[in-house]
Parts: sequence; C-alpha cells; structure tokens
Amino acid sequence: MHALVVRGGTLVTPTDIFVADIGIDDGVITAWGGRLAGRRTLDADGLLVIPGAVDPHVHLEMPVGPTQSSDDWATGTRAAAVGGTTTLIDFVEADLGAALLGALAARRAQADGRAVIDYGLHMTLREMTPATLAEIPAVVAAGCPSFKTYLTYAGFYLDDSTFIQALEAVGKAGGLVLVHAENHGLVEHLRRRLPAEGHTGPRYHALSRPVAAEAEAIERATALAEATGCPLYVVHVSTARGAAAVARARARGQTVYGETCPQYLLLTEAELDRPGFEGAKFVCSPPLRPAGNGEALWAGLAASSLQTVGTDHCPFFYQGQKELGREVFTGIPNGLPGIETRLALLHTFGVGAGRLSLNQWVQVCCANPARIFGLYPRKGTLVPGADADIVLFDPQATVTLTKDRLHENVDYTPYAGLTLRGYPHLTLARGEVIAAEGNYVGPAGGGRFLARPL
Amino acid sequence: MHALVVRGGTLVTPTDIFVADIGIDDGVITAWGGRLAGRRTLDADGLLVIPGAVDPHVHLEMPVGPTQSSDDWATGTRAAAVGGTTTLIDFVEADLGAALLGALAARRAQADGRAVIDYGLHMTLREMTPATLAEIPAVVAAGCPSFKTYLTYAGFYLDDSTFIQALEAVGKAGGLVLVHAENHGLVEHLRRRLPAEGHTGPRYHALSRPVAAEAEAIERATALAEATGCPLYVVHVSTARGAAAVARARARGQTVYGETCPQYLLLTEAELDRPGFEGAKFVCSPPLRPAGNGEALWAGLAASSLQTVGTDHCPFFYQGQKELGREVFTGIPNGLPGIETRLALLHTFGVGAGRLSLNQWVQVCCANPARIFGLYPRKGTLVPGADADIVLFDPQATVTLTKDRLHENVDYTPYAGLTLRGYPHLTLARGEVIAAEGNYVGPAGGGRFLARPL
Amino acid sequence: MHALVVRGGTLVTPTDIFVADIGIDDGVITAWGGRLAGRRTLDADGLLVIPGAVDPHVHLEMPVGPTQSSDDWATGTRAAAVGGTTTLIDFVEADLGAALLGALAARRAQADGRAVIDYGLHMTLREMTPATLAEIPAVVAAGCPSFKTYLTYAGFYLDDSTFIQALEAVGKAGGLVLVHAENHGLVEHLRRRLPAEGHTGPRYHALSRPVAAEAEAIERATALAEATGCPLYVVHVSTARGAAAVARARARGQTVYGETCPQYLLLTEAELDRPGFEGAKFVCSPPLRPAGNGEALWAGLAASSLQTVGTDHCPFFYQGQKELGREVFTGIPNGLPGIETRLALLHTFGVGAGRLSLNQWVQVCCANPARIFGLYPRKGTLVPGADADIVLFDPQATVTLTKDRLHENVDYTPYAGLTLRGYPHLTLARGEVIAAEGNYVGPAGGGRFLARPL
Amino acid sequence: MHALVVRGGTLVTPTDIFVADIGIDDGVITAWGGRLAGRRTLDADGLLVIPGAVDPHVHLEMPVGPTQSSDDWATGTRAAAVGGTTTLIDFVEADLGAALLGALAARRAQADGRAVIDYGLHMTLREMTPATLAEIPAVVAAGCPSFKTYLTYAGFYLDDSTFIQALEAVGKAGGLVLVHAENHGLVEHLRRRLPAEGHTGPRYHALSRPVAAEAEAIERATALAEATGCPLYVVHVSTARGAAAVARARARGQTVYGETCPQYLLLTEAELDRPGFEGAKFVCSPPLRPAGNGEALWAGLAASSLQTVGTDHCPFFYQGQKELGREVFTGIPNGLPGIETRLALLHTFGVGAGRLSLNQWVQVCCANPARIFGLYPRKGTLVPGADADIVLFDPQATVTLTKDRLHENVDYTPYAGLTLRGYPHLTLARGEVIAAEGNYVGPAGGGRFLARPL
Repeated sequence: MHALVVRGGTLVTPTDIFVADIGIDDGVITAWGGRLAGRRTLDADGLLVIPGAVDPHVHLEMPVGPTQSSDDWATGTRAAAVGGTTTLIDFVEADLGAALLGALAARRAQADGRAVIDYGLHMTLREMTPATLAEIPAVVAAGCPSFKTYLTYAGFYLDDSTFIQALEAVGKAGGLVLVHAENHGLVEHLRRRLPAEGHTGPRYHALSRPVAAEAEAIERATALAEATGCPLYVVHVSTARGAAAVARARARGQTVYGETCPQYLLLTEAELDRPGFEGAKFVCSPPLRPAGNGEALWAGLAASSLQTVGTDHCPFFYQGQKELGREVFTGIPNGLPGIETRLALLHTFGVGAGRLSLNQWVQVCCANPARIFGLYPRKGTLVPGADADIVLFDPQATVTLTKDRLHENVDYTPYAGLTLRGYPHLTLARGEVIAAEGNYVGPAGGGRFLARPL
Repeated sequence: MHALVVRGGTLVTPTDIFVADIGIDDGVITAWGGRLAGRRTLDADGLLVIPGAVDPHVHLEMPVGPTQSSDDWATGTRAAAVGGTTTLIDFVEADLGAALLGALAARRAQADGRAVIDYGLHMTLREMTPATLAEIPAVVAAGCPSFKTYLTYAGFYLDDSTFIQALEAVGKAGGLVLVHAENHGLVEHLRRRLPAEGHTGPRYHALSRPVAAEAEAIERATALAEATGCPLYVVHVSTARGAAAVARARARGQTVYGETCPQYLLLTEAELDRPGFEGAKFVCSPPLRPAGNGEALWAGLAASSLQTVGTDHCPFFYQGQKELGREVFTGIPNGLPGIETRLALLHTFGVGAGRLSLNQWVQVCCANPARIFGLYPRKGTLVPGADADIVLFDPQATVTLTKDRLHENVDYTPYAGLTLRGYPHLTLARGEVIAAEGNYVGPAGGGRFLARPL
Repeated sequence: MHALVVRGGTLVTPTDIFVADIGIDDGVITAWGGRLAGRRTLDADGLLVIPGAVDPHVHLEMPVGPTQSSDDWATGTRAAAVGGTTTLIDFVEADLGAALLGALAARRAQADGRAVIDYGLHMTLREMTPATLAEIPAVVAAGCPSFKTYLTYAGFYLDDSTFIQALEAVGKAGGLVLVHAENHGLVEHLRRRLPAEGHTGPRYHALSRPVAAEAEAIERATALAEATGCPLYVVHVSTARGAAAVARARARGQTVYGETCPQYLLLTEAELDRPGFEGAKFVCSPPLRPAGNGEALWAGLAASSLQTVGTDHCPFFYQGQKELGREVFTGIPNGLPGIETRLALLHTFGVGAGRLSLNQWVQVCCANPARIFGLYPRKGTLVPGADADIVLFDPQATVTLTKDRLHENVDYTPYAGLTLRGYPHLTLARGEVIAAEGNYVGPAGGGRFLARPL
Repeated sequence: MHALVVRGGTLVTPTDIFVADIGIDDGVITAWGGRLAGRRTLDADGLLVIPGAVDPHVHLEMPVGPTQSSDDWATGTRAAAVGGTTTLIDFVEADLGAALLGALAARRAQADGRAVIDYGLHMTLREMTPATLAEIPAVVAAGCPSFKTYLTYAGFYLDDSTFIQALEAVGKAGGLVLVHAENHGLVEHLRRRLPAEGHTGPRYHALSRPVAAEAEAIERATALAEATGCPLYVVHVSTARGAAAVARARARGQTVYGETCPQYLLLTEAELDRPGFEGAKFVCSPPLRPAGNGEALWAGLAASSLQTVGTDHCPFFYQGQKELGREVFTGIPNGLPGIETRLALLHTFGVGAGRLSLNQWVQVCCANPARIFGLYPRKGTLVPGADADIVLFDPQATVTLTKDRLHENVDYTPYAGLTLRGYPHLTLARGEVIAAEGNYVGPAGGGRFLARPL
C-alpha cells in the first residue's frame, strides 16, 4: 500500500513510453508497476506522465545594472511549477573579491523559504584569483559542481587566460564549465559604434551582437576546453554556425554539451522591428537571429548535437524596465520571460510539429539537464528512488498563450497569441500536488536546495 | 510477493544508474523498487543490471555462395545468450520472384524451436516487383517493418530506381529501410580488375572496397531517403567519411540512424596483412579500414551521430570455408564472428577506456536497437511490462578472449588475446536464467519470434 | 611593324592588369609592350582588353526529343561573337552503336563553314562498348580529350559501372571527364510521379529534380573519380550542397573542377511561378534553385572552389518549342539561351557587385575554361603566340537587355530588363574584328575546329 | 633592339606555359614575343623562365628576446637571390609608443644599401593608441598597406578589442591585415605549466602550442574580419583544422587568404624528438605538427583554399642562439631558416610529386604574394612594364641540400639531406644577373624599397 499512486498514465521517459502505475512514499518514487495499491490515487488516464521538467538556466532576482529581473524566488518558482518545471538551476554571482561560499550561502538564504520547487545553483566565476582557485573544490563539495563563465559582459567577462584557468581548475575538481559564448571585443565595439552612428533603436541590439560573435566564441570555448580536458556546456546556442561548432567538437570526441532556448527555436530578429519601442520586449543576449537558424537548432536537438533546452528566463517589465533603454538600446535590460512556457512550447512546436519524439522532448526538457548537472537520479527521471517530481501532461489540452494566463511576474509574454496543443495538467513536487490546471496550489516556500555531485 | 526478485544490483538504463530491486512475474518485469519480496531471489550485489542486449544485425545459417554462415539458430543464439544478448534481429532473404511472406514463414520455421533467445526478422528486398510492392504492407503487419536493402552484391543489389521504390513503399507503409551502402559499380569493377592484375591475396579485399565506395553510397542513400521522406538506418558504418555523411543528414533534420560494429571500432586493415592466408579471417564487407577511422566511429557513438553497435555476425570457419578464397580473395566468404563478444568488448574498450558512459553503452548495445526497430518497450529496457530479459554484468571480471572460451560455431575469434575487464555473469530471458558464468544453462529452443510494430 | 596593334588598352589577364599595346601578326599575338608600331591600329584607350571569352558548355543544333535547340552553328556563334565569346566547346553525340570518330567528323562537317568563331568539341559517351573503349585514344588524338557523361537522361544515362569504365578509360588516355550530375533514378521517379498526381505545370519541373538529386550525384561522381584517379569537371553546379561536395573533393587533393552558369548565379526557382505558361521559359536542367544557392555559388567562384562559368546555352523558342510541354512539364524542352550575355552579366553582377575581381572575371570566363580543356596557350590568354582573339570591353557602357538587342535565335531572353554596366565593344577573332558595337561584322563561317591536347 | 633578351625559354606564368623571348630595357620587361633582337642575350633554352619569386614573410635582423635573427639584410637577401627570390617583404616593428612612420624610416635606413633585392615592409601593429589610429593612413600612403598583427607573443599580442580596432582602421584605410593566429592565453598557460611540471625539452615546444590554439585563433580572426569587413591574410597556417577554418571563411564569401610554409608542408613534429638538443633546430611557431597535416596543406594549395607559400625565414644559429633554450624550451629562439630553399623545395615536392602544376607553383611562390600585397604588376609577373625580375630555373638540375651549399647565415638547414630535382640557374633583378649557378654575382646593396599601393 503506497502513500500515493499515480494510476494509469502513459509514462514517457527519455527512452520509454508505457502505461504503468507509479507508487510514491515519503515524496519518493518507490515502485512502478501495474495496478499498485495506494492510500491516495491520482487518475492519469489519458495523460502523459513525465518527470518534472528541469530548467538548467534561470535568472531570478538577478541584478542587472540599475534594476533586477522581475521574478523573485517566490513568483518565479510558482510560474515554473504551473508550467511543469519542478527543478531549476539558478546562479550565484559573488561580488568581485568576495568569497564564493559566502555568496552561495547568501543566495541560498535568499531562496530558502521562498522557492516553491527544488533548486540548484551554478557558481559564476567572475575572476580567477588565488582565493577563487582555492575555493573551487569547496564549492564543488558544497553541491555546486557547475561553474558559469561569461566570455562577454563588463564585470563578468573572462579573458582567455582567465577562462583557461577556470577550465583547468574546474576540470581538476571534477566539475563542469558553462559558458556564455560571445566575443567580448566585438560586442563592446559595436555597442559603442552603433549608437555613435545614431543607431539607437532595439533593432540595433541584434546588429551589435552578430552571428560571427557567437560562432567564433563557441569555437574558441570548445578549443580551450579541448586543450584543458574540461567538460563544457555551451548555454543558449542561438545560431546554425554555433551549433555546427558544437557538433564539430563532439565529432572530435570532446565532452561538450549544447543548450538552446525556446526563443531561438521559435522567434526571429524580425520581432525587433515591431512598431514603436515594442521590439524591446524581444531584447535578449544572444539576440534573436535571422530566419533559418531556428530550423538548424531544431535539427540539432533531434540529432543530439544539442542536448538541452533551457529558458534563460530573465524577465523585465516592459513598462519601467525595458523602457530604461528608450534612448539607446544598450540601456535595455537583456532578457526574456519563459520559465512557465518551455515544456508546453516544446510539446507543440517540437513533438506536435514532428521535429522531436515524445522521448526527445523529455530528454531535452527533463532528463538531459538533470543528468548533465548531477541531479540524477534524484530529478529528471521516474525511477524508484527518485523524488516524486512528476508532471501529468494533457496532450489534448488547447491553450492560447496570453500574458494573463501566465504567472510570471512581468507585463508581457513574447509568445502571446500562440495556440498550444498540450499543456501541463498537474504538477507534483516530492509527491505533493503543487499546481493544478493552471494554478499554483502548493504551500509557500517548500523548495529545497539541491547539492549536486557530478 | 514476486515470482523472482533481482536484488540489490546497480541498474543501468539508457539514462539512469541506480540501485533497486526488480520484481519479475510470468517472465515480465512487474516492479522496481527497494526491498521487493520474491519467492526466488537472484543476488545482484556489486553487479550491473542491464537490459538484455539487442543485436540488430546478425546472419545465422545464411547461404553465401557455395557455403553458409557456420552458426545456426541453435549455436548462434546460445553464443549470443552467453554473451549477454537476449534478442537478435536476423534477416529473411526470399528467392527472387518468391513471396516475401512465404519466405518469412519459412525463416520462422527454421528458427522456431532452435533459437534460444527471442528474435525478430528484417525483410530483405532484393527486387521491387509489383508483387513486392503489394506485399510490403502485409510484411509490416506480420511484424517485420524493417527492410534490408543492399546497394551492392550480385543478386541483392538494388539500383537507385529500385531503391527509391523501396524507400517510398516502405516509408508509406510506416516502415524503415536498412541499407548496406557501398557503390556496386566500383566494388564490382575492382573485384574484376585486381585479380586480373594478379592481386589475389586477402589484402586486396580491402582495396577492392575503398573508403570512397562507402562514403558516396551513404551520401546517396541519405539523399534518396531525404527525397522520399523515408527513415533510414545505415548498417555497419566503417569510415570517418561515412559517419560524417550520416551526421550531415541528421544535421539537415532527417531521420537517419547509423550503426557501426566492434570490428570497425577495434580492428584495422593491417590485420589483412597477417602472414600466410591468416588475413582471410578478417575479411568482411565493408572491409576493415585504415587506422584513424575507428576513433572517428567511437566519437560518433559518443556524440550520438551514430546510434547503435551491431555485430554483423556472419561466421565462417577458417578451415574449409575462408579457404575457399585461397586462390583469389573474391572467393573468401565475407564475414566475421562477433555475436558473443559485443557487449563485453564495448564495456572494456568503450566504458573502460573512457569513450562511452555506462548509459551510452546500454544505449548503443540495448536500448537504441530496440527502440529504432520497434521492440520497445518489450526489449532493450527494464521498465515494468518489459520482458524480463536481463543481464547481470560483472564489471570486475577479467577475461582473456580465446576461441575456446567462446561458443560461436567457428574455429577462431578475431579478438583472440584481448583481455577484457567486465563480462556477463548471468543472462535472464523472460525471467529464466539461460546463461551463467560463461555457459548456456537454459532450455533448448525457447526463443520466440517478435512481431514488431514501428 | 606589326600588322595590327591594339593600342593603349588596359589589359586584364587572369592575374594582371596593366596598360600595354598588343602586336598582332598573321592572326596571332606576337608582342606586348609599350608603343608598338602597327600598320593598322585599334584604339583601346579607356577599354578593358581581355582574352576572347571561352564558353566551355554550349549546345547548338542539338536534337532534343522531337525538336532541336534553335541556334545553329551560324546564328549561335554570331551571337557568341557579339557577346565577346571567341571560342566555344560544343558536343558530339554519336548515335548508340555508331563510331565516335564518325560522329566527330559529321559534327565538324556541320560546323565548318558555318561557325564564325573557333570551336572545340567534347565527345559524349553514351555507352561503353568494347568499340567505345577502343576508340577513346583515337578521339583524344583527334583533339577531343574531354568526354561528356550524363548521370541522368534516357539514352544518355550511364550507370555507375559504365561511368567507372568511362573514368578509367579516359583517365588512362590522358583525358578529362565532364559530368552532368543528377540522380537518374530519383529524377525519373519524380518525373513519373508528379504528373501522375496531377502536377503538370512548369513549377513541378524544379520539384522533379530536387537539390538532393544533384548533391548526391556530385558526391558520387567525385568519389568514383577519386577511386579511378581520373580528373573530373562537374558541369553546371547549381546548389550550395553541390558546390560543397566539389570543395570537399578538392580539399581531399583531387583534380576536380566545378562549373556554374549565369542562370544559377542570377535567377531562382521563383521564375517558374510566372503567370500562365511563362515559367516554361525558365525550364532547364538542373533547374533554377531556391534563393540562397546563388550566393553560395558566387562565393565558390570567388574562393576558387568553382573554376568556370559556362552558359549551357541550349535555346528553344517559347512559341512552338517550349509550348510542347503545355500539357505536362516533362514535355518542355530543357534549356535556356545565354551564349551572348555571359561575359557582360558576370561583369555587372560579379565585378560590379564586388563579388569578383576583374582578374577573377577573366579567369572564370576565359582563362580557366581554356586551361582546363587544353586550349592553352592558344585561347583564353593574351600571351605571344596565342591567337589574337581579343575583346575590347567598355566598362562604362550601359545596356538594358532585351530580346531585340540580342542575336540569339530565340524569342526571349531570361535576362530581359536587366541593366548592365559594361558591355563588349569590339571582338577580334584571330586578329580580325568580327563584332563591333553590338553587331556581327565579320565574314561568314570563319571558325575553325580546335584540336585540343590535354 | 632590346637591351637584353632572354631567349627561347619556357615561360611559366600563373596560368600560361609557352615558349617566348622576353625583351628587357632599363630593367623593365618591355616585350614578349618570338625572336626578339637584343644587344645582349641570355640563352634560356631548356629552362623554365618564371617571375622572380616573392617571399611575403621574412624576418631579417629581427630582435628576439636577448638575440636577433642571424641573417641581416645583406646575407639574407643574397641567400634569397641565389634561391630565386627577388622580392621579399619583411616587417617594421616600432617600439611601443613610438611613431610608425619613424620606425618605417629607420627600418628602410637599415635595409637600404645592404639589401641586394627589392623589398617591401609590412607594418606591425603592437598597439592601437590614438596615435596609431591617426598614423595608419599615412603608413598606407607611405607604401605599407599591409599590417601585421599577432594574437600571441608578449609585447605584440593584441586582445580582441584591439585587434578589432586594427581591422576596422586598416580596412577603412584600404589596407590588409596579416595575422599570426594562435591563442595567447592557451600558449602562455602551457608555456608556464609545462616547464613547471618538469617538461623542458624541445619536444614540449610543440605541446605548448597545440593544434587547437591555431584552429580557434584562425576561426576567431576570420570571424572578426567578417564583422569588420576587413580583408585578412592568415600567415603560416600549419594545421588541417586551420586550413579548414580559412576555407569556411572563403566559402562564406569573405576576402581571406591563407599562407603556409615549406616547414609545415614537409616536416613534422617528429623532428623535435631528435637526439640530444638537436630538436631545437626545428623549433618555430606555430610548431611543426603531427603527420597528416602536411598533406591537408598541400591539398589546400592545390584547391586554392590556401594561396601562398612564405618562408617565415627567421634563422638562429644552433650554437649560441638555439642553445639559449638548453635549460627550458621557452628560451629557444623561435624560427627556422628557409629563405633560400622555398622555390626549389616547392618544385620538387610540389610539382615533381604531382601535388601542384607548374602554374600553381608560380602562383603560390611568385604571383599570389605579389598580387595580394600590391606589388602587381611590378613584381611576381612577366608582363611588359614589370620589373625584369626573372628566374631561369633548371628543371633537370639535381641538388642535394646541405648547409654548405646554402648562403643563409646560420649553421644548419632543416632540409639537410634532401635531394631536389630542379634548381634556380640564374636570377635577374631588374634586368641584371645577380645570381648564377648557386652563387651571388650581383652588386652590393642594389635592392630598393617598394612602396606598395593596394
């Protein structure tokens, strides 16, 4: 007699599709099988039962220049939960000179009691001082074996020498490096030049971060990872040329992973030409790209040369935040909301459109992020022993996306007007229903920090 | 209370590694979990518990010119079982003009009662007559949705026009085409010319089937599959250039799969230079390749641009069979034994050498072949409802391969002298132990034909 | 004292640009230098002086099904001359079973006395009988070392085996194989299927010969050339994928050349959608391609991965000829006019648009075709000893193309309405002015057959 | 009546081969033709007559750490002349903070009166201060439109931001950027780490500059050139991956050139393993590479994806100079001699081995460097008006290379023991014989600075 049984659903794992009951006890999956007995039962007949989605790339309450991303740990994780995401990995950004472990503790303190789903943290490396080097093993031991690096952005940018130190130190500590790959020199150059030439509108954001800037930076990051032997995870690949660079590295035998995001799969730079200042709603980095890149990214996911879809959720209100860049696009906070819509978008435009199988959908949204980042077998899977983070997904539901339908704390969605086929019906976190039919119904602040081994 | 419980092993699935018990009833996996109760128990402590391996490419009792492959359904499947393979897919080759369904029935009759593991059959298309076209849907319905085509070999060769008909008809019927991709014209030309120039030894076998012959044929097959929209499975990719052609097709978004074999991963054409006529032991088609190709194939598996490892098991005795080609290499029957050694070879030289993860090992040997060929979820996985085909694999066992240790009905192994780390300990087929510690211990002829949907 | 001096022009060779006089005696260039003395003088001040263009790919009076290409040796060569082309290479197509040398003699007899410019002939290989094999060295010796092969077209198609024989025999004879590379099986299949499905308009011509058909055939042809060691010239490359296949072969170190044509550089398949039956005017094979391919071909020329621009001139009147396919596109004679416009089109859209340098323009239109096909140093160059085939090209002339302006014997031009900057001013053949300011002013039938060594 | 006639030789230009006389007056080619009359005559019967070779990459009297390259303007240019090189382009390296034009004047003063052949100078950009920016147009106007940049080497390294400024400023001024492309961070990292781990021998020089360091840097340089629209010349491409990056850029339509050197075509890193400290003789940067890269570079030249062969001549005596690195490889001065042997090496191992045609040999050694760097039509060609810099090359001469045969001021040659077929017989500079049968016979210091437009 299990505490809870999810009955009769169609289980979709990264490789399997089958009908079975799932037994849950103490928040953990304890059994699979036919006709399990439970004190409570959730009827999953006609529904897809999948591992709670894992979003490996989220920025909540993230300071950006004079403002910060508009979702906090409470609002952001609630939106995630409604959208079927039961684990996210956000970032720790220590001040320059500050101890990494201290910043980790502070970030955990900020999240604990407010996050409603479990979360992990990537440690951002903004510098490689002797103190940084010394702390890396302790950070890994503290459950953060994945280290974010930026090859651009003032205050975050690592030059090659520093990036190599990071790769070597993290590799030696058994960790993994994440990289935001755009050429700093080129981006900074164009961000200066374009406004100086009078090009100030949102459209020029895309021109300031050209395809070449990403393509070379991914090639460079993979080459340096090759030379140092460190595993590498390239965040938000947005171009066909970038995806090809990832594929070349993998064909050489390297451990390199590529992530893309819904915005790069579904939107193009044409959005930046919206009338008035509306294009600002679509300003993110790397920018939306010319048509054609999206199809190459879909093909990359299908061919497993890209492995994950993260959201890079980093919302800013159009009013008051995006508007900071009315005078010049460099003032527009970079980022789009997306924490709530990923799973459903990928179902409709991936599975529904024949670009991905159901299994691949679960791979890129749930299993691969969990596996790559050391959450396995606790998250991203339905095996016995795993946390009972489960989504009952209704493949027949029809939903038209609007800002009002969503729970992200922001005044727009870039996907407004899209009609989806298939939507999360029920979300369980550690065996408890926390979202149902589009609403958050769980307790406040039940999310826990996930120490991750790798 | 389960009929049988496999207790305490480390389960390795395509994406998971975790410790759990497996409950088995009526030959089927019925539950996973901690501390299951069973009437019988198999102790798997310290062992890897994996799905029985699936060999998608096997030729038993296969007529080849004046002889036939030396393993029959009984000997071949016993060797497979000892080696951890619990499902294989062999081929039906109807006579020209004969009905496919009739040949299928005959082949099943040959296997049933002799095969000791379950088996499927690919239907070979040697011609595309109106009768062939008419029969394809019925063959699919009879459980053979995968159709083997040859772009070379007299009597089997399909010209492009016929191959396109096959792709279109199979695609329309919801099936999948397998292709042996070598350029017929070039191979035939060289097989005539080399002996005419006095080049008769085994070495010239490799020269008669150059890298270019495979590279172009794979490019061609994928292009024709693209034009017809049919899924394609390229058997025994043996070259870096061939693997690149598969990867290009996948990057275009096509449903194309690539298989390689242990011989192409581990051996090179240098074997053909062995003293005397010994090189004949290494004559297979496509031939062993120049050094360097193997590493590219390993990288392809790791990068998921190749998906499976089959054996192309097609053994011939050196004495009496391979010797048919003493005068000229074109008389050497083409094929190597390998049905028993695949799983262990891939463990040592893949997992042990750091080229594949344990999960990838299970993917390429077990899960991917099952999934691609419609055996899922019955085979290739450990989910409830699946057949209890399970291998308890001892990762610590040390075994030096010799002909005598193996059960293949042939007087040599191409892998003689290799020392392996890790070897199958126990093999279960539908819940019964059929091989234990290197010996077949199961009943005779218990294997069943597997009708496969796709 | 030279018989004729071209004075003060800017000479453009494949690698040089410089001002010099050219001395001409007995129809041959005898000197370069400053201030040469001549009995006659042509003032070339302000003009570009280039080698007469060489068109390596022309079909005059070519039988095609129930009709034949509408330019004969007289009209076609006059149009060529006015357009700045002083040498062309057409084709000999022997009847099946007929002697090649006999057909060569007949074709020469047809041309001699009618052609107004010098011409060479490629020998088409439609079959590889023992007689064909035996004749190839004699054909080479007769001045036709380049052999055209077709991988598609009923009556011309060579299967791989025959194509390999051709490659080997021609390679052994010191010749070069030209290949029309499209997959016969696929093209034939689609030409049957599309009309059967009711798709009969010109638009479907493009769909019946998809990009994949060319891409694979070029890959195949280069692979077979690699295996046989024969130099290969791929005619009318029309796709980015085809150009990439040529580039891959060259990067492997093969002697492979790629030709493209103005229609593939400048037009797209959108032309086939013209109202009514007008699309028929743009039916050629390979067909016009989706947008984007053209830019890749320009880049291929600039990067020297493609070497020549031929015209594949094969005109048919819209009225009465193209109309043969009103009922179904397969009845439309394949081919476009272009013999007169190549040089000027490449100047405007190549040099003028910054895609090619002046030297590259001369390379692809004049020098490379001559060099590849053994006309050097007699044609395609301005060196002493070369025939005084010279074009005085006015880089400032502005010409809007219309049917009426051109001398091709056909009732339309696919380039109608294009405005060109730069146009041939004067054409000399062997030292005589044969075209001036848009009119043919030379004698009738002065062209001679060019026996070419290789 | 010409002052001098070179009679009866076989002229080889980038595209032509023909027998003609060359008329020379006042040091300039004034005519080509048959049977020219001259006051003096050089018999070239049986010899190849080619443009004097142009070496675009030479370092004479170049300060390197505590020492300097051992050939000065006198010895180096004499060796060049004997080897058939009549023009070289060396470098100006201004001190940091110093004016470029001043450094140019000083470098010219150093060369003038000592150089025996004409020379140009690339301007090295070590920094991009406002003063640098301001001076660039004047440097172009002073005849140095080509600017060398280094992506590695302390004191020379430009970070991406500075490199972009250089690209943009040079592009705007109508110039060309040369780039030494290796990843600075990686190279510096390994140069610190390897000695720290006790790896101090010459062998580790190669490991300190891995293939990945070049591959990524070339990709990066081409991407930044693409973004800024500046033409780029990649010096000393040494790897297959580097050559592929150049080819990718060219296939995108960029103006990118690639240079390789004889040492990368002919030698491998195995030379570094010579007994004792002998490996130091083969220390250059980028380093010699694993076998296989050379063949890819030959194919790149043949396919025109690489355009030139320079020497990167930078000799150091083994005794006293190379020995500076006896304790640790980082102390070994980087560089090999090669100024005298390029033309002959390329003839034997390029033309003689069937990898290049005679025309391609002239292209990569003579014409292409001249054209790319603005020496055309004065150098690198035989057209009227060109300087009469001519090599009479004896294709039948057999020479075994030894240190003693050569005139380079250094105590070894890396090519010792190679037997060449074909060697320069006579070298003319501006119409005067300056080298004959292996000896310098010209006057001292006759070389002039070449102001180059672009």
